[in-house]
Amino acid sequence: MRSLIDIPDLSTAEIDELIRTAMDIIDNPGKYSEKCRGKKLATLFFEPSTRTRLSFEAAMLELGGSCLGFSLAASSSASKGESVADTAKVISCYADIIAMRHPKEGAPYVASRNATIPVINAGDGGHAHPTQTLTDLLTIYREKGRLNDLTIGFCGDLKYGRTVHSLITALSRYTGIRVVLISPLELMLPSYVRKDIMRKNGVPYVGTESLEDVLPNLDVLYMTRIQGERFESQEEYERLKDSYVLTPEKLKNAKSDMCILHPLPRVNEISIKVDKDPRACYFKQVLNGKYIRMALILKLLEEAEKDPVLHEEDLSHLLENKLVCDNPRCITTVEQELDQLFEVSEAEAGTARCHYCENKMKL
Amino acid sequence: MRSLIDIPDLSTAEIDELIRTAMDIIDNPGKYSEKCRGKKLATLFFEPSTRTRLSFEAAMLELGGSCLGFSLAASSSASKGESVADTAKVISCYADIIAMRHPKEGAPYVASRNATIPVINAGDGGHAHPTQTLTDLLTIYREKGRLNDLTIGFCGDLKYGRTVHSLITALSRYTGIRVVLISPLELMLPSYVRKDIMRKNGVPYVGTESLEDVLPNLDVLYMTRIQGERFESQEEYERLKDSYVLTPEKLKNAKSDMCILHPLPRVNEISIKVDKDPRACYFKQVLNGKYIRMALILKLLEEAEKDPVLHEEDLSHLLENKLVCDNPRCITTVEQELDQLFEVSEAEAGTARCHYCENKMKL
Amino acid sequence: MRSLIDIPDLSTAEIDELIRTAMDIIDNPGKYSEKCRGKKLATLFFEPSTRTRLSFEAAMLELGGSCLGFSLAASSSASKGESVADTAKVISCYADIIAMRHPKEGAPYVASRNATIPVINAGDGGHAHPTQTLTDLLTIYREKGRLNDLTIGFCGDLKYGRTVHSLITALSRYTGIRVVLISPLELMLPSYVRKDIMRKNGVPYVGTESLEDVLPNLDVLYMTRIQGERFESQEEYERLKDSYVLTPEKLKNAKSDMCILHPLPRVNEISIKVDKDPRACYFKQVLNGKYIRMALILKLLEEAEKDPVLHEEDLSHLLENKLVCDNPRCITTVEQELDQLFEVSEAEAGTARCHYCENKMKL
Repeated sequence: MRSLIDIPDLSTAEIDELIRTAMDIIDNPGKYSEKCRGKKLATLFFEPSTRTRLSFEAAMLELGGSCLGFSLAASSSASKGESVADTAKVISCYADIIAMRHPKEGAPYVASRNATIPVINAGDGGHAHPTQTLTDLLTIYREKGRLNDLTIGFCGDLKYGRTVHSLITALSRYTGIRVVLISPLELMLPSYVRKDIMRKNGVPYVGTESLEDVLPNLDVLYMTRIQGERFESQEEYERLKDSYVLTPEKLKNAKSDMCILHPLPRVNEISIKVDKDPRACYFKQVLNGKYIRMALILKLLEEAEKDPVLHEEDLSHLLENKLVCDNPRCITTVEQELDQLFEVSEAEAGTARCHYCENKMKL
Repeated sequence: MRSLIDIPDLSTAEIDELIRTAMDIIDNPGKYSEKCRGKKLATLFFEPSTRTRLSFEAAMLELGGSCLGFSLAASSSASKGESVADTAKVISCYADIIAMRHPKEGAPYVASRNATIPVINAGDGGHAHPTQTLTDLLTIYREKGRLNDLTIGFCGDLKYGRTVHSLITALSRYTGIRVVLISPLELMLPSYVRKDIMRKNGVPYVGTESLEDVLPNLDVLYMTRIQGERFESQEEYERLKDSYVLTPEKLKNAKSDMCILHPLPRVNEISIKVDKDPRACYFKQVLNGKYIRMALILKLLEEAEKDPVLHEEDLSHLLENKLVCDNPRCITTVEQELDQLFEVSEAEAGTARCHYCENKMKL
Repeated sequence: MRSLIDIPDLSTAEIDELIRTAMDIIDNPGKYSEKCRGKKLATLFFEPSTRTRLSFEAAMLELGGSCLGFSLAASSSASKGESVADTAKVISCYADIIAMRHPKEGAPYVASRNATIPVINAGDGGHAHPTQTLTDLLTIYREKGRLNDLTIGFCGDLKYGRTVHSLITALSRYTGIRVVLISPLELMLPSYVRKDIMRKNGVPYVGTESLEDVLPNLDVLYMTRIQGERFESQEEYERLKDSYVLTPEKLKNAKSDMCILHPLPRVNEISIKVDKDPRACYFKQVLNGKYIRMALILKLLEEAEKDPVLHEEDLSHLLENKLVCDNPRCITTVEQELDQLFEVSEAEAGTARCHYCENKMKL
């Protein structure tokens, strides 16, 4: 039995297979409309996220299955202090597969170590949100016909945007990818993504503060939100904010077949006047999110049927209770019974990564 | 593709057809139990309303379809500031039809201009709640066998009760309707309903402060809540409140086949001792609400299948961005990107109506 | 038509029949997967309880039916002040059976007197939670092969734990039951359970403060939560708390086929290290909760089909409006229109029991 906590859990062949399944679902929906008859998806949303929750529920319903769950921690037993591990064991009695959103990083991983059914991470704090990345990949594939030989611009808050980090990491597996980073200095892509991901995989990249300068070169433009409070000064914010708002005027210089993505919800970083431009793909992206989740639910349920056992994870190579994770959003900060587990890799001498939230600490 | 935002969207022939379909559903439920197999209703309730939400969900389930959605803005992306237009576009990827309740007037209309699936207004502030009116019409039809030649009393808060205004407007399409308005002076029916609706359509009406005086004449009695704080003085409230509470004693003078309606929930304006009176129809009304919603969902889905395109609305006759709506509950007050649109009619010289919330303003 | 408000509503033969049905569901799930096709369960949760709500919903879905409802009073019309009676009548128009959780004791009973569909009490304050007791009975039956000739220990907060009182009462119907009460003095089982239930039914019992002393004798150990604030002094709490935490060490002295139950959620009264012990049955209990609810839903729907009428209850033997219930959690304290009803029994001279919440008062 397998869960999906983050994109590295999937091989490139598996990602390609998910995309193929999604394409087949799009072409032959009738073939899949009864595939999950009698199966139940539990949507455990410890913080609200309508889009993601309804995408999972629509996916399960279109497979002929049904849904149960909760959409706020307040309406769940979590308010009585139940551990994520116990919740996962309990829900395993009620459903066939779990989609979990949690404000604490690593919570879906903890669930996956305790549930006897597959767990899909539907977003854990700033850590991972793998079905968003699969959605982005399917959208690029559908729009461009390929996942290689592409120049992709990422624009906006590249520092905190987990969807950006995750998509860059995923694209680094493919050949001929060129990345253009468009952000104010305050919100630049973290160096670990530049060094550990792109350089290591030989992905060429350039950085710029100006969207307009690089727009003509892009095959794909990935927009994200910028929050004013993340700038160092109000003046800096005022100086830069308009340059990261996509308008029909700016688009005049872009390629005619460029595709514009955005994880949504947007605030005002894409003018609504862009919506009618055929290059605007962010609502198609929403639709693709449903299809790739259908493919993922199918895959994990099929694997669980073949191999219904929860396999013990080999933790012997990890540091156990030697360090205490200092990430305030780590699940270990609220669930005291969890062992502190850290991964030490040769590549990162002198550092260790929390096995739950991937927070990097000095040894 | 069509949506239902308010009763005037429907022709009288269409209302009669909806009633006929509902009657057929009541007589032959088995014929309809698989009609919406594979279809999904999204219930988007930006404010709570259990009765209306569950009525829509029960309707969809009895048609063999399924439901998804949310029942509080707090558990939705609206708390992240997403526009109604974007929400409508996103939900169009997940469902086949939307039922939307929103505190802002005109929000479901904005949704209907952006969704690529039909939108049903499930109540927008004090503006419109068309499925309640359809429910009332079906109940009168079932109880009295007709929608014409009826004397109908409306009792209680006639000033703020949108269900009263809407039902009077709908009944004005039929012949032989006589209206009796029973309310304290403070809560009289607004003059625009009296003048623009009833006088224009030749519907005779009388007004009175006394329920008991007119009860013997009524074929239908439509009760509504009165809130104490809407009276000018506490003395006035104390003097009048009991006269608007329906009791078995008062009912002694009513016709034996009168039918009593109430949009529910009631507080104490109908004594629970009345519940066993065969004339009490307010719980039958709840049941009828489910049936008419089944008929409506069927109709809108059928029309969407024949004509799946969202047609651009012709706005050329409207004043664009010349006035700013001063109704604090209008959707334009919270969504700044919406154009201000006003309708100017010859009949109302010197005034214009907000195209979203129907607020009337001076030119 | 029948509802289930508390365990005494069921004969011992009916409990045994429910257990038999549940065993058959476990053995032949396919036989039941379409039994409730087209039927709807309304889960009306006026306070949150994820486990119980999802257990009911999973049960209904596995019977092929569907669910609607709400999981918080705030998202329901209750916030507009609708009475439980009216809510029950309204929901009867939307669903085929109700599961109701309510903070006020007696609320599900009031619902059952007004609904025209069966009502299952899913927990009303500290009063009753009969499906938990049925769950416990099924678990004991599955683990031990019988419901008689058992030594059962109850450990923890025996004073306030309604699940303990209810299970002791239910077990008192069977033969050869021996009860061991393990609690601090402050949290001893109330005398009415000892006297009125166990002594009256000839169930031998002993009390102790020490779990370790009695553990070797037990066939079943029923653990419950202890809340620190229920002790008279902090010193007393510190002195005792560890003795009521179940650990692998303590379990060494227990029978090898003892079975450990807990109504969940647990906080720390059972160490997670016990989870892998084959005697730990509290997650099996969760699964059994789903199966017994399937059996119960089936039974009540079948009875409602044979006898769809809501029978008037004979209240002639009750004291009407002579006493006012002084239990602050009684439904009569918030719903003023309810008659005060008290039961006077010969066995309890000088006292009367509230017909809603079973609060005992002096005459």
